[in-house]
Amino acid sequence: MPEYRQDPLSQRWVIVGSERSSRPQEFVERTDRPSDLNCPFCAGNEEQTPHAVQIYPATNGRAKTFPWQVRVVPNKYPAVTTEVPASPTSQNGSLHRHEIGFGQHEVIIESPEHITSLSELSLADQVLVWRAYQDRLRTLRQDGRFKYVQIFKNVGAAAGASLEHTHSQVVALPWTPPDVQSEADRFGQHQTKTGRSLLTQIVEEELASGERIVAQSPRFVAFCPWASRFPYQVCLAPRKQAGTIEQLQAGELSELATIVGEVIGRIERALARPSYNLILHTEPFDIGSHDHYHWHIEIFPRLTKAAGFEWSTGCWMNPQPPEQAAALLRESGLSPAS
Amino acid sequence: MPEYRQDPLSQRWVIVGSERSSRPQEFVERTDRPSDLNCPFCAGNEEQTPHAVQIYPATNGRAKTFPWQVRVVPNKYPAVTTEVPASPTSQNGSLHRHEIGFGQHEVIIESPEHITSLSELSLADQVLVWRAYQDRLRTLRQDGRFKYVQIFKNVGAAAGASLEHTHSQVVALPWTPPDVQSEADRFGQHQTKTGRSLLTQIVEEELASGERIVAQSPRFVAFCPWASRFPYQVCLAPRKQAGTIEQLQAGELSELATIVGEVIGRIERALARPSYNLILHTEPFDIGSHDHYHWHIEIFPRLTKAAGFEWSTGCWMNPQPPEQAAALLRESGLSPAS
Repeated sequence: MPEYRQDPLSQRWVIVGSERSSRPQEFVERTDRPSDLNCPFCAGNEEQTPHAVQIYPATNGRAKTFPWQVRVVPNKYPAVTTEVPASPTSQNGSLHRHEIGFGQHEVIIESPEHITSLSELSLADQVLVWRAYQDRLRTLRQDGRFKYVQIFKNVGAAAGASLEHTHSQVVALPWTPPDVQSEADRFGQHQTKTGRSLLTQIVEEELASGERIVAQSPRFVAFCPWASRFPYQVCLAPRKQAGTIEQLQAGELSELATIVGEVIGRIERALARPSYNLILHTEPFDIGSHDHYHWHIEIFPRLTKAAGFEWSTGCWMNPQPPEQAAALLRESGLSPAS
Repeated sequence: MPEYRQDPLSQRWVIVGSERSSRPQEFVERTDRPSDLNCPFCAGNEEQTPHAVQIYPATNGRAKTFPWQVRVVPNKYPAVTTEVPASPTSQNGSLHRHEIGFGQHEVIIESPEHITSLSELSLADQVLVWRAYQDRLRTLRQDGRFKYVQIFKNVGAAAGASLEHTHSQVVALPWTPPDVQSEADRFGQHQTKTGRSLLTQIVEEELASGERIVAQSPRFVAFCPWASRFPYQVCLAPRKQAGTIEQLQAGELSELATIVGEVIGRIERALARPSYNLILHTEPFDIGSHDHYHWHIEIFPRLTKAAGFEWSTGCWMNPQPPEQAAALLRESGLSPAS
């Protein structure tokens, strides 16, 4: 049974054990990758995953070939599970704080075909993925048992992916994780102090300077953060404050899919298709409306490895100045003519 | 010029740029390893590293073959440098806090021969490495310009090492990093509240339960922490509170080298010589004597990869319950007879 445990020295929370737990040799790094024949995410292999909780049909001529375009399924090896009591919190009376690992862990399969990056999808199909993000956030918010939903992509083995077929993960938690709560608190404090969103101010400063801008569109800006902890880290945010992507309309979603696809494309061309992570930062469900959380996306290729210094100090070493990273990503155009 | 920068959203500090900065292709993962012929850490290649700041001669018969056994040199590609002003702090008036990257970055070369793990050294030579840790801590404390010294080992490419020849790194900082300060604060709070060391209490609870103990000796205990964030993570601590290893006498140092060697040996046998990190947690130099920091060592093989969930939430997923990890490490004896 998965469990949330808090380390008394670092006060870090860890989800320990779970369906993912198994024998030691399973942790050894695997270099072999599944072919599309035995990929559980490919159309035709639906029986290898749990029953879908949501399906988005293929559009245009593809509907004849594929029964679905995007498919949301419970994670077969969940880190947290709804099959345990949501409460009560248990305590063993010592220094060891822990709680039962209640939560919901899902996978968004982003294509019926065996492709390995979001950037290989048509724009319409990329929009469907963002539509699925919106729908899962709305559904899990309405569920009432969850306080926060983390949506993220691990692309490539170096980014922690075990399957290469393009997909996202959704983890719904009955509590707000510490780093998310700290960020929300900082948005609230900045709002109280200055009357505006911290990220709006950052975006304006980035636009004024220009040296770390990677891409922009009428509603969105992508830049390499001034204190990037990873080389080529990109933050993508709406120019105007909003706590979540749930209210974005069709046209806005299309614009978002376009600029995210552009950023991923630039990273893939500049760095020969590296492994990367994509993280959606969205508001905790119980945040006060006055706290003005400002949603954003982080995308970073996995080129360097966190090592002894980072694990110990919480301070990061990034050999690549973000000004240089942004310049290289800007140069990595969409086509020779761009 | 390296720079400390603080991210306004996460408040994370990052050391940006440095001598390590270079062209993008240098970040691409290298699988080729240097042979001992061109290894800059091997005896005979001393001119490939900066001049040694400290040298420990080989003992016994080896002195005829090798000019030194342990050699401490400035890092040729330092993350921080003493070649910049130690002050003043510069601020650019926006949200972007930063400071010049003053600091000292050294390498402890642990053997004249091309070996790849501490566990291959004789006990006497392992003790010399701990002697070097002690001496660097004392020297850098006396220097007066530093507030904290982080000593750590990255062993193997997956742990962030760029060279396989056994070595440690020493980073002296003019400030106390955030995670170290938080831990020190927690020791202080627990001491005030209960009159004793938080880690002494943890060690006593671990000994009472026994299920997470990996190894023990008269003065030291090694266990898998109750909320380990990594599979097979081991914490090694003295039974009695002490802020630093600087005062350990010869016999204590030998006992420490023995139990650290035993833990590394158990990990290497249980997991087919994985990459691993070793971190020394020691007191900040300006800590109050009433705060009773309790030094300890963390050792963890690099089997899983931090991915989107961890980078975003600050909460970790560890599929391996530490009780199971400790049992497997206990079974991984020193010899068939043990």
